Amino acid sequence: MKALVYNGPGKKAVEERQQPDIAAPTDAVVKIVKTTICGTDLHILKGDVPTCAPGRILGHEGVGIVDKVGAAVTAFHPGDRVIVSCISSCGKCDYCRRGMYSHCVNGGSILGNKIDGTQAEYVRIPFADTSLYHIPGGAEEDALVMLSDILPTGFECGVLNGKVEPGATVAIVGAGPIGLAALLTAQFYSPAQIIMVDMDDNRPQMATRFGATSVINNKDGKAVDKIMTMTNGRGVDTAIEAVGVPASFITCEDIVAPGGIIANIGVHGVKADLHLERLWDRNIAITTRLVDTVTTPMLLKTVQSHRIDPKQLITHRFKLDRILEAYETFGAAAKTNALKVLIEA
Amino acid sequence: MKALVYNGPGKKAVEERQQPDIAAPTDAVVKIVKTTICGTDLHILKGDVPTCAPGRILGHEGVGIVDKVGAAVTAFHPGDRVIVSCISSCGKCDYCRRGMYSHCVNGGSILGNKIDGTQAEYVRIPFADTSLYHIPGGAEEDALVMLSDILPTGFECGVLNGKVEPGATVAIVGAGPIGLAALLTAQFYSPAQIIMVDMDDNRPQMATRFGATSVINNKDGKAVDKIMTMTNGRGVDTAIEAVGVPASFITCEDIVAPGGIIANIGVHGVKADLHLERLWDRNIAITTRLVDTVTTPMLLKTVQSHRIDPKQLITHRFKLDRILEAYETFGAAAKTNALKVLIEA
Amino acid sequence: MKALVYNGPGKKAVEERQQPDIAAPTDAVVKIVKTTICGTDLHILKGDVPTCAPGRILGHEGVGIVDKVGAAVTAFHPGDRVIVSCISSCGKCDYCRRGMYSHCVNGGSILGNKIDGTQAEYVRIPFADTSLYHIPGGAEEDALVMLSDILPTGFECGVLNGKVEPGATVAIVGAGPIGLAALLTAQFYSPAQIIMVDMDDNRPQMATRFGATSVINNKDGKAVDKIMTMTNGRGVDTAIEAVGVPASFITCEDIVAPGGIIANIGVHGVKADLHLERLWDRNIAITTRLVDTVTTPMLLKTVQSHRIDPKQLITHRFKLDRILEAYETFGAAAKTNALKVLIEA
Amino acid sequence: MKALVYNGPGKKAVEERQQPDIAAPTDAVVKIVKTTICGTDLHILKGDVPTCAPGRILGHEGVGIVDKVGAAVTAFHPGDRVIVSCISSCGKCDYCRRGMYSHCVNGGSILGNKIDGTQAEYVRIPFADTSLYHIPGGAEEDALVMLSDILPTGFECGVLNGKVEPGATVAIVGAGPIGLAALLTAQFYSPAQIIMVDMDDNRPQMATRFGATSVINNKDGKAVDKIMTMTNGRGVDTAIEAVGVPASFITCEDIVAPGGIIANIGVHGVKADLHLERLWDRNIAITTRLVDTVTTPMLLKTVQSHRIDPKQLITHRFKLDRILEAYETFGAAAKTNALKVLIEA
Repeated sequence: MKALVYNGPGKKAVEERQQPDIAAPTDAVVKIVKTTICGTDLHILKGDVPTCAPGRILGHEGVGIVDKVGAAVTAFHPGDRVIVSCISSCGKCDYCRRGMYSHCVNGGSILGNKIDGTQAEYVRIPFADTSLYHIPGGAEEDALVMLSDILPTGFECGVLNGKVEPGATVAIVGAGPIGLAALLTAQFYSPAQIIMVDMDDNRPQMATRFGATSVINNKDGKAVDKIMTMTNGRGVDTAIEAVGVPASFITCEDIVAPGGIIANIGVHGVKADLHLERLWDRNIAITTRLVDTVTTPMLLKTVQSHRIDPKQLITHRFKLDRILEAYETFGAAAKTNALKVLIEA
Repeated sequence: MKALVYNGPGKKAVEERQQPDIAAPTDAVVKIVKTTICGTDLHILKGDVPTCAPGRILGHEGVGIVDKVGAAVTAFHPGDRVIVSCISSCGKCDYCRRGMYSHCVNGGSILGNKIDGTQAEYVRIPFADTSLYHIPGGAEEDALVMLSDILPTGFECGVLNGKVEPGATVAIVGAGPIGLAALLTAQFYSPAQIIMVDMDDNRPQMATRFGATSVINNKDGKAVDKIMTMTNGRGVDTAIEAVGVPASFITCEDIVAPGGIIANIGVHGVKADLHLERLWDRNIAITTRLVDTVTTPMLLKTVQSHRIDPKQLITHRFKLDRILEAYETFGAAAKTNALKVLIEA
Repeated sequence: MKALVYNGPGKKAVEERQQPDIAAPTDAVVKIVKTTICGTDLHILKGDVPTCAPGRILGHEGVGIVDKVGAAVTAFHPGDRVIVSCISSCGKCDYCRRGMYSHCVNGGSILGNKIDGTQAEYVRIPFADTSLYHIPGGAEEDALVMLSDILPTGFECGVLNGKVEPGATVAIVGAGPIGLAALLTAQFYSPAQIIMVDMDDNRPQMATRFGATSVINNKDGKAVDKIMTMTNGRGVDTAIEAVGVPASFITCEDIVAPGGIIANIGVHGVKADLHLERLWDRNIAITTRLVDTVTTPMLLKTVQSHRIDPKQLITHRFKLDRILEAYETFGAAAKTNALKVLIEA
Repeated sequence: MKALVYNGPGKKAVEERQQPDIAAPTDAVVKIVKTTICGTDLHILKGDVPTCAPGRILGHEGVGIVDKVGAAVTAFHPGDRVIVSCISSCGKCDYCRRGMYSHCVNGGSILGNKIDGTQAEYVRIPFADTSLYHIPGGAEEDALVMLSDILPTGFECGVLNGKVEPGATVAIVGAGPIGLAALLTAQFYSPAQIIMVDMDDNRPQMATRFGATSVINNKDGKAVDKIMTMTNGRGVDTAIEAVGVPASFITCEDIVAPGGIIANIGVHGVKADLHLERLWDRNIAITTRLVDTVTTPMLLKTVQSHRIDPKQLITHRFKLDRILEAYETFGAAAKTNALKVLIEA
């Protein structure tokens, strides 16, 4: 089968690989129908993710059709249409039992990282019963690819951890795909204001279309002042960090109101200054989270009932054999305005 | 001044009364600009509320202008435009400190009940600093009359107690004004389904316009069967009782899913059967609540940010001197299709 | 092997049965070392539990040694010492994923009910990975038998649902084994008062030894009056129903304070009156729950760290071949003062 | 009257001052019976707290007798015995209404800081109705001085924010008075392990007496390694920072388990490194808090019911006229082993 393979820092190729097979009784093999590319794939390609060895098939998002199942798989059968979760959850360990699938001691964030992933014609899914989700008949599968990772990530790490609530003031620092996923799902809770902050020229417009009540281009470095003015000097109830660099995290420290929350989504490569000398008495919380995908069933219901339309995040479409082009488009987002690129079998 | 006075069971009149004055340093006197009529006022008029003595000016909802304040009032000044809360909260007692203003040992649900109310030209408001809310400049005051009682009641007793959440299935039994207030505010949380149940012919249509995803006319007594079918035999996550009779409460018992909640809003005059022989192992919760109006500031923000439009609840308008007509219209809702009748100074 | 078999209403016998074997890849067979008898076993014997057919081996509590495991079992191996949970949890279904194992669509409360149970030399445990718990080396296994059912039941249904907290006032109506399990675990949260109510003459003394701050013998029917006096007319924050009859539930309705919770543990055979005409405006919650055993790992840690000593609940000991005598002793608790009877292989 | 006055950095004196009087209708004047010294007082004396001007009477803790009340005070009367809260709460502003008294826009942490404090014969207490607490008859007033600040601080900022729960593993970094207050109140929730970390030689012993299950002297800098070993490499559920320097905060970052919480109590003067490159995917929370004293009534109940004995924190006693000696003793804690020094009228 065809697969997109990571061949060490800076190197990737579409290669012919052997189709995966059942390796444990809890495995399923899924024929991929649609997949996509995530910022994490770019991190891996740069060589920033040491757990991912050269030779690995990338990709941890996708929808597909169950091809084979192991002897212990009971919830899925060949032919079932499924969403692949980016997190593999054994369903048995202490972390899984607490709903913290991200830290599953037998799985976690392994797909397209420690084991071969979804940017291929077929993928082996461990712990299939607890790592796949049924697609209801008639569902829009394009939209559901967004449920593998980006939507639960924005929702769990940003919105749920940030405790967004009706009438609240929310700022999202970073209007890339993940910030927009937070923006879309924040609206589940009817906040009064959602302020998007970015340095890009095109994203503000997009953010407005996606439901932001205000958009700030922080090229001039005045986002903090503007937000404090907009909130009468009080700051925001929820500040969502959706970039992953110290500057944007510190922006969040500067704008969080007493009693507020900084919900970090960004993947950080270096430490940040925590200004405890200003924050120790502010009654705030800072949260971090690797997505657990524990809300996938809930999100599926919101998609099915048209409370949200995650298809909006898809800006480009490619066939699997043109996946290198898809990577190029996604990697040059500043130029292409790409959010999510859909790759179809 | 003119006032609507309760003169014993079945008797009411518009009478000339002396304008109220400051009686305690924490009092304010408010000139009423708009008020409305509540189901509780009808209960009082029937003689069902023993705490309300004949001679009482009725009414516990309204917006107005502060006329005078006592020496200890610091947050309000003459000329301030305000929302009157149906609950008087001293802000000091254990219950108030816990946010349970409904059970304030010095106040509570006293307005238009144990003390003179808002269906008059002026009203004395005890504990003004903690029982009035500032109206922001430019706000639609018609909409804000709904914040005195009906909107926080639907929201706190039905939606918050019922823990409505994204993707959930909600049933509201009773599509009168209070059920519709629950319907409007339930949408803050993006449930997948909101099923309204009523016996009236006109209300279903209204409920659909207000955002219900399904409407069931229970004249045939088949609401339970229909809801169980709609939910694949599972039942609903949240069942909101918005009538106040045993039959509708038992409908809620019959449709609540394992792990679900029955949130009672209705004012009950008699006991109901609690089928513990079926419910003891269903992991459900049943909640009751007299509105605390602790969410009034939150609701105000949702109105100001256009997340909700409570004006929709207003079906009729009268001048204060025609308030008897307003009562007639409101009391004959089945015929007039009245929801909330607005009474203007 | 020897097993205690239910042979229809009123009939039980120790019979010779074939040793169970692995039936599904997720099964384990456990050699029982210690088991005990539960009130539910007596209900079954009376014929009150229609899901339990004659011929069934009873028992859903116990500790033992893993004898065999199916191909898909990874967390347990032959020779492992284990606690058997009274709830079988598949770990995959929606309910299990939400921590509501009691309603597992593939398991639930099936042991010694829909499938053969633990009052035997061996038992087959379905979904072993998610229905057994490892016993740490050196642990007191007598104490751990109490973790199969009675301790999590008292804790989850009574204490957690009842939201017991530091400084609170708790009443437990019913001082039988389950009420005492609630009493023991309520002390995890340092309430100021724990009032036990019963009609028995011996139990009060026991309750005091177990940590009750007050004990009321309700033979005179004056428990409500006494509790209202003890709480200055306010009532209790948490009322735990641990009997399962209408009278004790109504006692809870009568003593719950505004803002309080009635946490039902009792297994009810008939409906009870819910006095909504008094409770609709009291801001209370009523909860029901079949134990989920989701707190078993937490409870195990409290036992291991000596925060609780569940061995106190054991009043009598028998060998398995004298289990009929154990039933007699347990069934005549009023005379024998039996709480839990331990049955050893 | 005699009072301890701050006269600029490094300077303090016992001076004769005029007795305070009622300045607003919501004031009370309290005759101080017992007071104590807090670490914050030492910060002020060093000149580190710019809001505190020279000439200020210090002190924000104490019990006393109400001497006079303003016209709007209704809950207290002359002769009432009271606890003075370190936080003045107006009870009216948005923050007070949310239970965040620390950020009261009219009060907050002002006593002995922006207004004269309790280290004097008399003190004026603003917002008396919501800033004083009644002392029940027969209560031990020594113990109750600890309810002004240190006990709610350890409890709210450390234990509540840290979500300590039964069976959990807790580490408290810093075994000074505030760390010990966290240690005492953590036991309300029956954690399995409470590990105290300090660099002092005497404190470990004290911590053991106060209920720590392990004590680590971190002079060798090996606390992190030891804690990771003790927790099988997992780390702690709750890490409480009770020092206020970067090193101890970073210790908390190093020992917090996935899914755990770092609850900061320490008053920090400089920023700390936040290692987001290691923590972004650990699903942790970091909280900060200035004490709200919202739990004072709850803590009072735990003292009255003997669930906790805060008197243990008192190591030295002085008369008010020897308060300079009390400061010396408290300031030289490393030598004197002082925890809290009680100063009596």
